[in-house]
Amino acid sequence: MVDPANTVGIPVNPTPLLKDELDIVIPTIRNLDFLEMWRPFLQPYHLIIVQDGDPTKKIHVPEGYDYELYNRNDINRILGPKASCISFKDSACRCFGYMVSKKKYIFTIDDDCFVAKDPSGKAVNALEQHIKNLLCPSTPLFFNTLYDPYREGADFVRGYPFSLREGVTTAVSHGLWLNIPDYDAPTQLVKPKERNTRYVDAVMTIPKGTLFPMCGMNLAFDRDLIGPAMYFGLMGDGQPIGRYDDMWAGWCIKVICDHLGLGVKTGLPYIYHSKASNPFVNLKKEYKGIFWQEDIIPFFQNVKLSKEATTVQQCYIELSKMVKEKLSSLDPYFDKLADAMVTWIEAWDELNPPATA
Amino acid sequence: MVDPANTVGIPVNPTPLLKDELDIVIPTIRNLDFLEMWRPFLQPYHLIIVQDGDPTKKIHVPEGYDYELYNRNDINRILGPKASCISFKDSACRCFGYMVSKKKYIFTIDDDCFVAKDPSGKAVNALEQHIKNLLCPSTPLFFNTLYDPYREGADFVRGYPFSLREGVTTAVSHGLWLNIPDYDAPTQLVKPKERNTRYVDAVMTIPKGTLFPMCGMNLAFDRDLIGPAMYFGLMGDGQPIGRYDDMWAGWCIKVICDHLGLGVKTGLPYIYHSKASNPFVNLKKEYKGIFWQEDIIPFFQNVKLSKEATTVQQCYIELSKMVKEKLSSLDPYFDKLADAMVTWIEAWDELNPPATA
Repeated sequence: MVDPANTVGIPVNPTPLLKDELDIVIPTIRNLDFLEMWRPFLQPYHLIIVQDGDPTKKIHVPEGYDYELYNRNDINRILGPKASCISFKDSACRCFGYMVSKKKYIFTIDDDCFVAKDPSGKAVNALEQHIKNLLCPSTPLFFNTLYDPYREGADFVRGYPFSLREGVTTAVSHGLWLNIPDYDAPTQLVKPKERNTRYVDAVMTIPKGTLFPMCGMNLAFDRDLIGPAMYFGLMGDGQPIGRYDDMWAGWCIKVICDHLGLGVKTGLPYIYHSKASNPFVNLKKEYKGIFWQEDIIPFFQNVKLSKEATTVQQCYIELSKMVKEKLSSLDPYFDKLADAMVTWIEAWDELNPPATA
Repeated sequence: MVDPANTVGIPVNPTPLLKDELDIVIPTIRNLDFLEMWRPFLQPYHLIIVQDGDPTKKIHVPEGYDYELYNRNDINRILGPKASCISFKDSACRCFGYMVSKKKYIFTIDDDCFVAKDPSGKAVNALEQHIKNLLCPSTPLFFNTLYDPYREGADFVRGYPFSLREGVTTAVSHGLWLNIPDYDAPTQLVKPKERNTRYVDAVMTIPKGTLFPMCGMNLAFDRDLIGPAMYFGLMGDGQPIGRYDDMWAGWCIKVICDHLGLGVKTGLPYIYHSKASNPFVNLKKEYKGIFWQEDIIPFFQNVKLSKEATTVQQCYIELSKMVKEKLSSLDPYFDKLADAMVTWIEAWDELNPPATA
């Protein structure tokens, strides 16, 4: 296949589908009718549906999709006592899907996310863009002002060190949202009518040493490289906090990617986020997080993992110890969370035993 | 003035012109006919033209523009022996204009930069966007995934610490280029036909601790906040290197802005860069820089300024000592450059004496 815009005639490879190497993880409490709209792009893939809340409720999955579905009873059965690390009545339960997948890549999407259109009116194949992002390197060590240097028609600008132009392997691709932006409850309350209509045609690497607010709505990652750190924490039922599941995972994966020399990208693809959640309910879930994050973020900004931590699991266990030591004074919740981080790794390793040599 | 798109009816202030607070600095060796195209946007401002090369050559400035022009004889007369810190036969001489300006803001632009068009076909008022960028805060301490949170229709996303939402004062606004991208000679040689046609509608803060390749072609800054660090080094005639003037300034201003808690933005506005410079000539100018930057960048990544350095001048003098100590082993040029950095500060302070109390 030759790209028509390519004037020098170098063949451009199409983005591989990775049909047998990628699972789509969807947490839900309702029927998955939103998948109808995604059919042209997502039907070739296997779905892992994690049913949140009442396990007796029947979830309808549109005809023709290949899927496995887990409800709370399944999670309890599979993980036994270790099921305590998986949140209940919160979309944080999605991370159970990451654990039971056997594929290299994960794309996770919320059930209120529809297909976005680019400025030319063309439907955006979000998953294809995520695959592109994951398969091409990241540049966390130096900033490129023309954004993704590997994109067709772009490159590294003058002054970019040649030794850094190979970049590093990408572990995470964070996509964005048109229409309803991912705001916290206070911002939702203040700007109830604000809609994101601006399509920024860019993908960029988040520099090493910089934290970012990772949203779980439209997210893809390399499970082999970073899966064990994609834990969405303890949220929802019985917990003092909600809506910080993806944030927690984002802080953890970023410090671990930085330590292991892996890349995290943000930008394209957009999805169309259809409905705003209730800001009053959100405020109740979030208020402790809003307060705690003022201490959690400086904590993560100062995390230094040891040279001995060379696997994601080792990094994550080290991190759990630091959480216990440094954040427990904030609230006993963090003591429980640190324990759950360890349980999560134990459960992960149980379901994903290392290949025997 | 009420913005028609503003549904809640909050009055939106137009961007101030800052006509009496901003100088436009242009280094040139030819007639400034490019200013004809910029007339609707730039004519209200005062120009400082720094004539490079042969001082006997007459530079033509389009009618109606208010300007002062300095050639090499003027620079020698004004700075005396300190004129040695100003490059000759290189656009690095532009920094003399920053020094003689008496205004708070500087916009500097190359004479081969034309007015760009946005995707709707509207002419981009680059200076207005730079002023917007400079007058609104930066967010170097945490990454906002929806880009500039202060832009209309945007905000801080969920998970952004509230304590950081006031941001920090912006010192530098780095604009981009459509058509001819700012590539180094090797990339120019490899991709002679590549043109930048992608208009990315975003402004972002370069995170604290991250270096970037700053291009001097389309650049604005707050002279009061960072002016003394905007030294474009020793380039061109009699020097072993060229085309690294803006890079040098970019590395210096970034570590000093990070130290002083100031912000650096990149992205909008675009200008239309009309012609590619000769890659063979560029290669000759650049090749030592391409080699040296592999050491210079780790040097800047590890610069730690002392707590005692609280002014730009103090930071810059500290930096000059580190350059002498750490980079002189690379080439005697850096010893000379470190001395020139000190001379530059002395000359700056002479022309810009601190206001008497």
